[in-house]
Amino acid sequence: MRDLVEIGMGRTARRAFGLDEVEIVPSRRTRSSKDVSTAWQIDAYRFDIPLITHPTDAIVSPAAAIAIGELGGLGVINAEGLWARHPNADDALTRLVDAAGSGPSGDEEVPLVPLLQELHAAPIRIDLITEAIKQVSAAGVTVAARVSPQRAAELTPALLAAGVEILVLQGTIVSAEHVTRDAEPLNLKSFIADLDVPVIVGGVHDYRTTMHLMRTGAAGVIVGYGSDYHVTTTGDVLGIGVPMATAIVDAAAARRDYLDETGGRYVHVIADGGVQTSGDIAKSIACGADAVMLGAPLARAASAPGRGLYWTTAAAHPSLPRSQVVPMIPDDYQVDLRTLLFGPSNTADGEINLFGALRRAMAKTGYSDVKEFQKVGLTVRA
Amino acid sequence: MRDLVEIGMGRTARRAFGLDEVEIVPSRRTRSSKDVSTAWQIDAYRFDIPLITHPTDAIVSPAAAIAIGELGGLGVINAEGLWARHPNADDALTRLVDAAGSGPSGDEEVPLVPLLQELHAAPIRIDLITEAIKQVSAAGVTVAARVSPQRAAELTPALLAAGVEILVLQGTIVSAEHVTRDAEPLNLKSFIADLDVPVIVGGVHDYRTTMHLMRTGAAGVIVGYGSDYHVTTTGDVLGIGVPMATAIVDAAAARRDYLDETGGRYVHVIADGGVQTSGDIAKSIACGADAVMLGAPLARAASAPGRGLYWTTAAAHPSLPRSQVVPMIPDDYQVDLRTLLFGPSNTADGEINLFGALRRAMAKTGYSDVKEFQKVGLTVRA
Amino acid sequence: MRDLVEIGMGRTARRAFGLDEVEIVPSRRTRSSKDVSTAWQIDAYRFDIPLITHPTDAIVSPAAAIAIGELGGLGVINAEGLWARHPNADDALTRLVDAAGSGPSGDEEVPLVPLLQELHAAPIRIDLITEAIKQVSAAGVTVAARVSPQRAAELTPALLAAGVEILVLQGTIVSAEHVTRDAEPLNLKSFIADLDVPVIVGGVHDYRTTMHLMRTGAAGVIVGYGSDYHVTTTGDVLGIGVPMATAIVDAAAARRDYLDETGGRYVHVIADGGVQTSGDIAKSIACGADAVMLGAPLARAASAPGRGLYWTTAAAHPSLPRSQVVPMIPDDYQVDLRTLLFGPSNTADGEINLFGALRRAMAKTGYSDVKEFQKVGLTVRA
Amino acid sequence: MRDLVEIGMGRTARRAFGLDEVEIVPSRRTRSSKDVSTAWQIDAYRFDIPLITHPTDAIVSPAAAIAIGELGGLGVINAEGLWARHPNADDALTRLVDAAGSGPSGDEEVPLVPLLQELHAAPIRIDLITEAIKQVSAAGVTVAARVSPQRAAELTPALLAAGVEILVLQGTIVSAEHVTRDAEPLNLKSFIADLDVPVIVGGVHDYRTTMHLMRTGAAGVIVGYGSDYHVTTTGDVLGIGVPMATAIVDAAAARRDYLDETGGRYVHVIADGGVQTSGDIAKSIACGADAVMLGAPLARAASAPGRGLYWTTAAAHPSLPRSQVVPMIPDDYQVDLRTLLFGPSNTADGEINLFGALRRAMAKTGYSDVKEFQKVGLTVRA
Repeated sequence: MRDLVEIGMGRTARRAFGLDEVEIVPSRRTRSSKDVSTAWQIDAYRFDIPLITHPTDAIVSPAAAIAIGELGGLGVINAEGLWARHPNADDALTRLVDAAGSGPSGDEEVPLVPLLQELHAAPIRIDLITEAIKQVSAAGVTVAARVSPQRAAELTPALLAAGVEILVLQGTIVSAEHVTRDAEPLNLKSFIADLDVPVIVGGVHDYRTTMHLMRTGAAGVIVGYGSDYHVTTTGDVLGIGVPMATAIVDAAAARRDYLDETGGRYVHVIADGGVQTSGDIAKSIACGADAVMLGAPLARAASAPGRGLYWTTAAAHPSLPRSQVVPMIPDDYQVDLRTLLFGPSNTADGEINLFGALRRAMAKTGYSDVKEFQKVGLTVRA
Repeated sequence: MRDLVEIGMGRTARRAFGLDEVEIVPSRRTRSSKDVSTAWQIDAYRFDIPLITHPTDAIVSPAAAIAIGELGGLGVINAEGLWARHPNADDALTRLVDAAGSGPSGDEEVPLVPLLQELHAAPIRIDLITEAIKQVSAAGVTVAARVSPQRAAELTPALLAAGVEILVLQGTIVSAEHVTRDAEPLNLKSFIADLDVPVIVGGVHDYRTTMHLMRTGAAGVIVGYGSDYHVTTTGDVLGIGVPMATAIVDAAAARRDYLDETGGRYVHVIADGGVQTSGDIAKSIACGADAVMLGAPLARAASAPGRGLYWTTAAAHPSLPRSQVVPMIPDDYQVDLRTLLFGPSNTADGEINLFGALRRAMAKTGYSDVKEFQKVGLTVRA
Repeated sequence: MRDLVEIGMGRTARRAFGLDEVEIVPSRRTRSSKDVSTAWQIDAYRFDIPLITHPTDAIVSPAAAIAIGELGGLGVINAEGLWARHPNADDALTRLVDAAGSGPSGDEEVPLVPLLQELHAAPIRIDLITEAIKQVSAAGVTVAARVSPQRAAELTPALLAAGVEILVLQGTIVSAEHVTRDAEPLNLKSFIADLDVPVIVGGVHDYRTTMHLMRTGAAGVIVGYGSDYHVTTTGDVLGIGVPMATAIVDAAAARRDYLDETGGRYVHVIADGGVQTSGDIAKSIACGADAVMLGAPLARAASAPGRGLYWTTAAAHPSLPRSQVVPMIPDDYQVDLRTLLFGPSNTADGEINLFGALRRAMAKTGYSDVKEFQKVGLTVRA
Repeated sequence: MRDLVEIGMGRTARRAFGLDEVEIVPSRRTRSSKDVSTAWQIDAYRFDIPLITHPTDAIVSPAAAIAIGELGGLGVINAEGLWARHPNADDALTRLVDAAGSGPSGDEEVPLVPLLQELHAAPIRIDLITEAIKQVSAAGVTVAARVSPQRAAELTPALLAAGVEILVLQGTIVSAEHVTRDAEPLNLKSFIADLDVPVIVGGVHDYRTTMHLMRTGAAGVIVGYGSDYHVTTTGDVLGIGVPMATAIVDAAAARRDYLDETGGRYVHVIADGGVQTSGDIAKSIACGADAVMLGAPLARAASAPGRGLYWTTAAAHPSLPRSQVVPMIPDDYQVDLRTLLFGPSNTADGEINLFGALRRAMAKTGYSDVKEFQKVGLTVRA
């Protein structure tokens, strides 16, 4: 079947697929889970599991970033979030949790966007974000922080000074070619070239922008921005979106072509969107991702700062919010982070033992490392 | 993929797509929202935003038409609606709102069709509609009114005398070739040729009828009639309908071919249907529309005469109604019209800041005007 | 797009479409409703509207058959139903209605199948069915009755003697070639040849069986058996079914080929299934049907013997029922039969003014008779 | 239509279909139900109906296995389940049923996975499973038991000694080529060759693994593992799955090719998944299965040990459960096993008279045995 559909006279649209439409096909071989490695490495930094957090205050505090790092993943602190704006970010989060108190539970939105907007109206303080990053750094885990393209030039020096080892430059939609009349846009290529730390940049949704961003010198490119998920509402608000299975496959094609173009430079593809269960993590890798940027599934950790609430940074936009605030779990369902990531699970819904499940999915289909697993067979229900 | 499907032996059907099935794809470039223009122009009339109202009493009173005009859109008064039939239309609307009082909220229909039928059984009074139009005209905004093909010949002279500057000739399905045995049908071509004001005509659902209507001299053609929406029930009642994405693309193809045929006459395509959120507005333009005819989303304005209820004129048909009466919003969710159109929004559902969102969608995909944005890439989920 | 899908290695399945997946496309012409004829004729019998009733006791009593006939349709009495088994069928129906009394309303099933089975365990009495048919005949309308293939030979002589003018020979799935070891199967060809009245036979779901049945001399072939509808459960119970749009198109192809083969013998295609609204009636004709066999929509008539309950004859099967008993309407929503068929309607859901809506659908797309309307353009949402 | 879809640049996925997407097409011939045989034979064992049970304690106790055998099917005892671990398995089941007591009914999950995990933490006792098998054997029906690949070598000798006649070697996903570094994996080929009883092995999801397993000498291959069903959550947890219609068709292709390769060795294809109704049983055979492995539908039997609860063995996995525990029925809806299998039914939902319905589906489409029915025509709704 061709990938173009004529949706009307003289106009074609690309057929695109979500993670919910694909499934992994077992192959002729199975393998013991013990013989499987889920490790990956970006620049000099090695991780036991292909997990980067979405940089939302709902799941990443300095303490949570340390815990995630100690368990083999990478927590990313939002350098423009509550920890950068409030001396006591925990109090701010308590206001949110209290306001949600009488709300529904089980994946229904609660009207907390106005409160998030108010909390983000406080100015960013370099001293606060510096303190937060130093706290993570002191624990000995890899330190990462996120800035937006708009504020990258302003905030990055302080972040590096505080000890950031991996910089995440992330907006809803980022291009290598931002046009503006009344300000000097960020020149990504020179910005990255001037830095001594690896930069992960995104989100992108198409092959060409991925190529462009790879050519800026980025160490990793983020595909999606929580797309496909009812928390993120980019589709409702802007009409923009590419279902994640297709978006990841396209970015992986860019990675391959850029590798060829450069004779060997490998830029990582990090999938940010569409993941609700451990099965979705496996599918993201199967579509070609090197790692997943996890958001909502981590809100179930007892240590998550949002205490069960989840939102992305887009929820706090002052004039056009593009994320709901969603209670992910009933109060009594929180689990400790280690169990959430590695089990044992006592539920069959794919929400606990997230990376034990990835390991088993790889074993059941006969693959022993993440890079190989990107080639596993897929079916599609469309 | 071909656009024809063999649905049985020897019979093909055209594959057609709704706005909910397409999504806009970001491109390699992004742009500042400030550098984007959403303006458009029809004949001598220029508008800041590509917004025409569906001509229903639920959202357009003389006062509402003035407010919409002052904010850069075009309000269209229904010359066959309540303002044309009742000396105090507000009282009639109060009866409706009171009758709905104990009804459900949140997009469920209420059984108000019989009351609407009763209210529309009163005769049209030229003096009343003249007064309504003069009220709008006096405010200095562009004045538009809608007539049906059946009553166009009878009502138009009075409308023009009252000050109408753009005439909207609109029925559920309009053709350039109406056949009838016992009356002289409206000859659209000579009707339009004899007028001094631009005429917008529709709704149409296919390429050929769009071409025919363009050839009558119309300044704009309306695609759809609230199609794809649960308020409008043309599909349930008549089995007729073309999903809006395909319908808009086809009409845009007719616009292009007619432009070529005439060596430069540009007839505007106005999309009327399938729009629930700001994302749908962006998708309508992306499919090729020059402007959108908005209905239900405007029912959320505090100033909407229907006070949160929405229906189209087809709801009042004496023997075969084809529109439900639907409460669009809980009482405490109304916003002022300016905020509805331009924000700021404090909700992530795409229902507020409708045209700020369009501006941002264009910026995020690198386009600077409406005409260019019609070429943006699309994906389809089918 | 080809009509075959490879569902696995070496195995193809036919793509098939339901009425809910197709929509009618307006054409370049519109027409006045007054200039449209919905009449059709089978053998010597002419009807104002293309309506035959599904032969269920839920909607057809002798009185209801008379009322339907007087309004231009054809009511079919089930010669194996309650009127054939109980001296006072109304009492039997009252038992059903009473048993349903405390049940839900609004399209949910009630567990009345066991009671229907019990009521159908009574033997068929020739005197009772004779009396019922004579009652209809005395009113001067066309008289039709339904028998199953199993009992056709036994019951038909009495039915003809009582005055039946059109015989409906109907089972869930009927073929021209029934194989059985321990009894002589009905030879349809000689059975029909020996009769002086036109025979309508079905249901069928494919082209080849339709051709075979046309060759037996049938005057009409019934496509479907209430298929596509939640009342009928042939798919759940037997796994058998062809969505109605495809089934009707295929039967129409057989009609065309048989017409060619015989040099002019026109056998009518009657669609029995998938119809919930007036829009579905229009779509059935648009797919190629000459008439529709209506069931559930007629349960809303105040005169329907089931008093709002609906079921097909398959509900009473002694060991394998294949129809639910479903309350179609709240008690206060019944309308008189004339209004149900011809309006005026005061609701926008396509459930009232069923044939006024068909007339309008034809007018809006420019067609003036049923035969022409079979050629109208279609879109499909798949 | 081709069976490959390009889901992104340079990556294809196989289109796959579930049983819910296919329907059986009637053919030109019908037949009397009495002339239909549903019998099948594996090795020397003949069965009246193509029914093997899924080896879960929810539906198979020794007593239930006897009852199923006496009615013409094959009950499979789980040699690693509760009867192998608890001297009084009925008490263990009572604990489950009591814990579920206040839970919902009607296909909603209850949080009983932790209790199942606890009950399965008890060690397997050879004496207990021996006793259970001898009980079945004493009744004179064919005796079958299930082991996992991990414990097959350890448990099989005792099972054979106890009287097992057919061995079912079943895991979620089984291959002929299991790779492990720290233990000697089971060599299926020599394992099977050394046994005197026929071995049924699975689950598999693809053509190649099916071929490999057939080449190990298996008498039957199980396709799926309760796939497509909301009870089983392999897709949510592992992202793995192939919709059953495609999986069965592919396995049947392997059966055909293996038959050719060996010049006549026929290995049976047993479908385990996607069956909720009698219609699904018919569809499984129609796709190419020789028999179905039934699970949830048998939970409705009054004699089912789970007393209305259903789960698969994967629910008890100590660290990564992949099955919910689901109450299948309201308490008062249980039916005796004979009625469940052979009717009469007094409900139209396809849940009673499961194999009477299969017989009728074959008759209505003109087929007289299971092998022929594998060729019946299919439609697909995609």
